[in-house]
Amino acid sequence: MQAVKAEIIAIGDELLYGQIMDTNSHWISQELDAIGVRVVRKTTVGDNRTDILTAFEEASKRADLILITGGLGPTQDDLTKPLLAEYFGCDIVEVPEAVAAVSSYFLRRGREMTPLNILQGHLPTCCTYVPNPVGTAPGMWFEQKGCYWMSMPGVPHEMKKLMKDFVLPKLPQIFDLPVIYHKLVKTAGIGESWLADLIKDWENALPPHIRLAYLPSLGHVKLRLTAFGTNKDQLQQEVAAQIQAVLPQIEKYVYGYDEETLETAIGKLLKNAGKTLALAESCSGGYVSHLITTVPGSSAYFQGSVVPYHNAFKEQLLGVNSETLSTHGAVSEETVAAMAKGVRALFHADYGLASSGIAGPDGGTEDKPVGTVWIACAGPEGVETRKLQLTQDRMLNIQLTGVAVLNLFRTCFLPKHK
Amino acid sequence: MQAVKAEIIAIGDELLYGQIMDTNSHWISQELDAIGVRVVRKTTVGDNRTDILTAFEEASKRADLILITGGLGPTQDDLTKPLLAEYFGCDIVEVPEAVAAVSSYFLRRGREMTPLNILQGHLPTCCTYVPNPVGTAPGMWFEQKGCYWMSMPGVPHEMKKLMKDFVLPKLPQIFDLPVIYHKLVKTAGIGESWLADLIKDWENALPPHIRLAYLPSLGHVKLRLTAFGTNKDQLQQEVAAQIQAVLPQIEKYVYGYDEETLETAIGKLLKNAGKTLALAESCSGGYVSHLITTVPGSSAYFQGSVVPYHNAFKEQLLGVNSETLSTHGAVSEETVAAMAKGVRALFHADYGLASSGIAGPDGGTEDKPVGTVWIACAGPEGVETRKLQLTQDRMLNIQLTGVAVLNLFRTCFLPKHK
Repeated sequence: MQAVKAEIIAIGDELLYGQIMDTNSHWISQELDAIGVRVVRKTTVGDNRTDILTAFEEASKRADLILITGGLGPTQDDLTKPLLAEYFGCDIVEVPEAVAAVSSYFLRRGREMTPLNILQGHLPTCCTYVPNPVGTAPGMWFEQKGCYWMSMPGVPHEMKKLMKDFVLPKLPQIFDLPVIYHKLVKTAGIGESWLADLIKDWENALPPHIRLAYLPSLGHVKLRLTAFGTNKDQLQQEVAAQIQAVLPQIEKYVYGYDEETLETAIGKLLKNAGKTLALAESCSGGYVSHLITTVPGSSAYFQGSVVPYHNAFKEQLLGVNSETLSTHGAVSEETVAAMAKGVRALFHADYGLASSGIAGPDGGTEDKPVGTVWIACAGPEGVETRKLQLTQDRMLNIQLTGVAVLNLFRTCFLPKHK
Repeated sequence: MQAVKAEIIAIGDELLYGQIMDTNSHWISQELDAIGVRVVRKTTVGDNRTDILTAFEEASKRADLILITGGLGPTQDDLTKPLLAEYFGCDIVEVPEAVAAVSSYFLRRGREMTPLNILQGHLPTCCTYVPNPVGTAPGMWFEQKGCYWMSMPGVPHEMKKLMKDFVLPKLPQIFDLPVIYHKLVKTAGIGESWLADLIKDWENALPPHIRLAYLPSLGHVKLRLTAFGTNKDQLQQEVAAQIQAVLPQIEKYVYGYDEETLETAIGKLLKNAGKTLALAESCSGGYVSHLITTVPGSSAYFQGSVVPYHNAFKEQLLGVNSETLSTHGAVSEETVAAMAKGVRALFHADYGLASSGIAGPDGGTEDKPVGTVWIACAGPEGVETRKLQLTQDRMLNIQLTGVAVLNLFRTCFLPKHK
């Protein structure tokens, strides 16, 4: 089977001048990759006749599928439609169905339609009209000499709607696509190279139709297994078996699969066990509470938090002993353990988590340089603490502390709630 | 003066398959735009010989400047260096200075250098070696028939270092660039179209060499003034005079200029006035505290915060009256005002801010649908409150509440501390 080659062309001056980041091409890449279409090139050009026509010509020589975003607005800057008509040598005529759709779009919003908007329902005679229910610029589908073209608006949610409703379902009908199955295994608490070392024997023994990729991000590493074949159920079973085979070696780092995040994963743990959580955040400054409360329904297990940004409040609100603070300092195992216990009591929670550290850029000493962070988890069984030695960068230190605090909770909680 | 035309080529399979978003090209666009170099095309190709050579050839026909990122790693997948040598018809030889730089990079980190790493110090004879102090892949500068080429690593902070240290200072020496001066005026609390309406007379009267752009983002609108000419000081004065002219109409929405953010702006206000702040965050769940504590030195004015995720803690910690809660509900003007006063007292702060709302997706009622949020600012002069009617999206509601809370503080604080 010959791989289907796709090119993506993004059109608009605002993309070239750095006013808008082209997130469309990235999203399209991911969607095409997931169904086995190979993107071989992405091009961005401005609102310029020659540049756009050149991009069309170059792409047509190489690709089986050309996806175009942008340049479909109602004003004269927007050249995609007339240039597609010119490229394919056809006229632009009124398409009553398309004009009706634009007019109904305005009607639903109680807004006036301008003559320019009516022109959005005029389309090249050689294209198939693709309705856009969430905007005013229709999609246009072209076929020429075995090459397929789709023109879509640049507004991300409009483009995505047309891709999901029309393009992605159509591609398997036109092309002989491989069956592909992806599974993400998500880990925290271990670096990419350590993880790779841990599972290298398993990785080397993977069959050729199952590929492994390491996708590292801040404090996390995702393992992506991609299986190619002809039968989706079978691929799914094979991948599941491979994950079962490697799991004993990496189980303590795996917090979830696919769309799960650390915060949804610990939410699930707490909800299932009927337990609750509270947080005392010093150096993380509210970031962990923010992560936890982004999860819908978190009020079922999250009691609340305190950010005690000065020692007086660590004493007053969390009951940290003033001697502990004066003897060991705010950034110490003793203080962070007392904070975790204190916040657990304050919020009547089953578990209390705490962070205290030097986020930087100032405040470091020789003993405790910038990036020194203590974290703790207090529960019915006692307190566990961990020391982190992070970076010079304040924002990075806050984010890495956030991941470490959530992951500490997971590793403290799990063995007791199997 | 003929505009200098630049093309950007990003190289790497991971960019085509959607594993990594190409933020490099976007950043480079912004930097080039700021100095008057016109980006006419961006291209992304994979780790494939023919595709890369084609991209080189096509770009060389159109551009005065070609900036290449990626494909410079030590492994065999990385083709940029050998293909540049092939394209320019020259050999790759050891550059002792470059090998020494790679070896010193590893030495500083106490890590072993592999034979593959040594090869990173071998470079095409026709290039100028550009040292990379923050990584192992050097930059390479080429000149051919009036076209200039720069190859840089794909790791964003390495690319940025080479751009800032070498490319951006070099361009004005090579090219006859226009003098351009940019100034950002940052606003919050007003939508793009309202702002445009407010200043349309001023905008229409701008001289042709000063351009205005509206750059909206979550809860903010930035006004970008760009002036073109021959004398930077004069442009700066002209732009300053234009801003002075429009300021009376928009002053209450303007929180800062250029790199300032809402959180650095309010930090400056508090620091200058010697005042302190505390927060009670219900629906914003720690997000505002997080924003405030990302600012270095925020401990000088930030006392701390409480996230009381249940009514019991609004009573217990913030002293909100149980009758207030039962009569008006947690999401009400009365409750949020009491929270702001309570947290101000708890943390002995000059100002207390509070949020309470229905972030969603569940929990809405007919009276108080999802997206209903109350915010308050309590100070020595009393309490100010505001009601927000936001969206259906939980994350968006949290972020928009964050901006609104910070902006409410600014508008309460400013009139009293002029």
